[in-house]
Amino acid sequence: MNGTNEHLLSGVRILDMTRALAGPTCTRMFAELGADVIKVEPAPDGDMVRSISKLRNERSFYLIQQSLNKRSVCVNLRDPRGLSLLRDLVPHCDAVVENFKPGVMADMGLDFDALRTLRKDIILCSISALGQSGPLATKPGYDYIAQAYSGITSMIGDADEAPYIPLAGIGDVSTGVHAAFAIAAALVHRARTGRGQHLDVALLDCYYHCHEVNVHQHTGSGGKIDPMRAGRHLSYICPAGVFRVPGGNVVIMGFMHHWPDLCAAMGRQDLVGHPDYATDADRLARRSEVVSLIEGWLAGFPDRDSAVSKLEVHGVPCAPVLSVAETVQHPHLRERGTVRTVNDRIAGSFEIPGMPIRTSDYPAHPGYSAPALGEHNTSVLGELLDYDADTIASLRADGVLVEGDV
Amino acid sequence: MNGTNEHLLSGVRILDMTRALAGPTCTRMFAELGADVIKVEPAPDGDMVRSISKLRNERSFYLIQQSLNKRSVCVNLRDPRGLSLLRDLVPHCDAVVENFKPGVMADMGLDFDALRTLRKDIILCSISALGQSGPLATKPGYDYIAQAYSGITSMIGDADEAPYIPLAGIGDVSTGVHAAFAIAAALVHRARTGRGQHLDVALLDCYYHCHEVNVHQHTGSGGKIDPMRAGRHLSYICPAGVFRVPGGNVVIMGFMHHWPDLCAAMGRQDLVGHPDYATDADRLARRSEVVSLIEGWLAGFPDRDSAVSKLEVHGVPCAPVLSVAETVQHPHLRERGTVRTVNDRIAGSFEIPGMPIRTSDYPAHPGYSAPALGEHNTSVLGELLDYDADTIASLRADGVLVEGDV
Repeated sequence: MNGTNEHLLSGVRILDMTRALAGPTCTRMFAELGADVIKVEPAPDGDMVRSISKLRNERSFYLIQQSLNKRSVCVNLRDPRGLSLLRDLVPHCDAVVENFKPGVMADMGLDFDALRTLRKDIILCSISALGQSGPLATKPGYDYIAQAYSGITSMIGDADEAPYIPLAGIGDVSTGVHAAFAIAAALVHRARTGRGQHLDVALLDCYYHCHEVNVHQHTGSGGKIDPMRAGRHLSYICPAGVFRVPGGNVVIMGFMHHWPDLCAAMGRQDLVGHPDYATDADRLARRSEVVSLIEGWLAGFPDRDSAVSKLEVHGVPCAPVLSVAETVQHPHLRERGTVRTVNDRIAGSFEIPGMPIRTSDYPAHPGYSAPALGEHNTSVLGELLDYDADTIASLRADGVLVEGDV
Repeated sequence: MNGTNEHLLSGVRILDMTRALAGPTCTRMFAELGADVIKVEPAPDGDMVRSISKLRNERSFYLIQQSLNKRSVCVNLRDPRGLSLLRDLVPHCDAVVENFKPGVMADMGLDFDALRTLRKDIILCSISALGQSGPLATKPGYDYIAQAYSGITSMIGDADEAPYIPLAGIGDVSTGVHAAFAIAAALVHRARTGRGQHLDVALLDCYYHCHEVNVHQHTGSGGKIDPMRAGRHLSYICPAGVFRVPGGNVVIMGFMHHWPDLCAAMGRQDLVGHPDYATDADRLARRSEVVSLIEGWLAGFPDRDSAVSKLEVHGVPCAPVLSVAETVQHPHLRERGTVRTVNDRIAGSFEIPGMPIRTSDYPAHPGYSAPALGEHNTSVLGELLDYDADTIASLRADGVLVEGDV
């Protein structure tokens, strides 16, 4: 926790029992907006991600990225004194967030009913892969498992080949943000009604939420429309998708009213009024021909960026497909803070994604830092529970509390 | 708006000037949690999505999915009386949400400073493709353009081929939820401080937010790690990805402590302690061999689901890659409400994704309906602005207010 920590959510306190990605994204959104987030890590090793991306000085860059402005308390959750300590913290917290396998919180005596006996208006947010209910609820879950069940995986790749998976935590991050919204809404509700809430947020549901047309088109057409992956181009407008250029790829959105602009860029005004290409439906019916025509034109450019420049002159919506390495250097992403630099006291300086919410009153990146394992054992237990130094030392000696160097 | 509308966000009122997908997702999250969302649609045709997915009775299924529990007011925004009416509504609203191209709100005299003169503590949330600031801010933006600039597109497909795009609104939906969280946090902040806020949420930033390891691994390794799409399998653990089975595909997560379970499922206990496959690093070094070995085993199953059953018996995290058509029928998704049925008074019954936030106090799907164009002109202007029937009739006669059948 840094300095005054004044931001949108100052004054809110979260007991963060999450690990890995979806849960920590949720609580980090709170921490980055100034909430006091107490990250509970299981002794002796802490969050499993402390072993990932140890790129310098034994410090996990993964942990840093997900733990900015959080406080770390490292507790043996298999020791009754550890669980008792957690129960003592609950009355001081507005919300508890967890992403254990469904049932684990109950096993620890920390299900919603139990938490409510500790604080009547507590908010509990349970994050899981496939949900707290339903026949698949107890299946072991990862992002890509929820993605496969959601039908999203089936929409990526060529129709006659096995699908691809995006190598990024799209579902985990989106789910974490869904959960953050749910908790913030429950805080607004609590202010009005005095009541707490149990929130159930699942990766499966959050992935499914992304089907903007697929589900209603399938069911609304009585099954006649069967949504399926269709390569590098959209299946309901044309042209729109990824196009090859020498040395790279560009995204071009040249449908509807953008088609005449694209024709102008290509120097093919003859195509604007041509009956074969008059509407998106006409162009869709000849999609491979339209794509070949555009890629044939693009083949004449020396490189990707000169093609993008030409398209921009004509107002055609377009973008270079940037590699991750290119994004880090891009002037727009740097100026905007989409790429941010963190200066970690142990690992030094490197880049991570910026906070995706900008406010008019507060800086997006106030120089937050991430905690070492159990760094805030003493301060949290001292401040909130009035534990004295002897009690803490005794718990430490017994391995109920653990502190690490990184 | 339905019945008592009692839910988490009852009592909150949103002036919703958004169209298409990212903005309407944000305001729908509020509407589904009981807020009074006044959807402002430009006369004469309304939100552009009213022309998409008109599958029955001229009704847009797209509009229905994104407008549940919203009220529609259809106003000519090029008429001073239309803009004046909007200004009159602002003091009655807690937040204004818009996803115009940056600059358009100012052109209408509705930028943050102007809104603050109408209501001192107003919250304005501006949603855009590439952000309100930076050299690319004024570029025309679509989901896939932001995705290309974010580096996410570069992480989908085979390394030596052009990338693929997911045929679902992943970025728009995630951005809408980011924006919803931002507004809810600003409401909590306003309750504490009495102050409003201008929020800037962009697809580019929300997509970039999904890089859980790519950005820090590239920069933290001094550029030695160059994240790039790598086919159907994860690039840092193994085996993990999409595997072919007769008649379909399965996702298998067989890394770390799951490897012995996978070996048991395959009847290949000899591989558990084998030095060639002992760790994820060993298996990664032989990734194509490991994938072939697993797909060779899977080829012996009669179909996808029998392979999944076998893997489940051995506790291996796995999933069938479901098509959208299969998700709609799946017992888990139906029981959980991940798939929900809407009964539209004009279009009839069909399925859409469920509300991805479940609460303990309220039903997830209280039978919400979506408005016809301008359906709530009279009720909103009557209730909030005390416009009488003659005034409304006169505005309607002049085309300042428009009402449609669907």
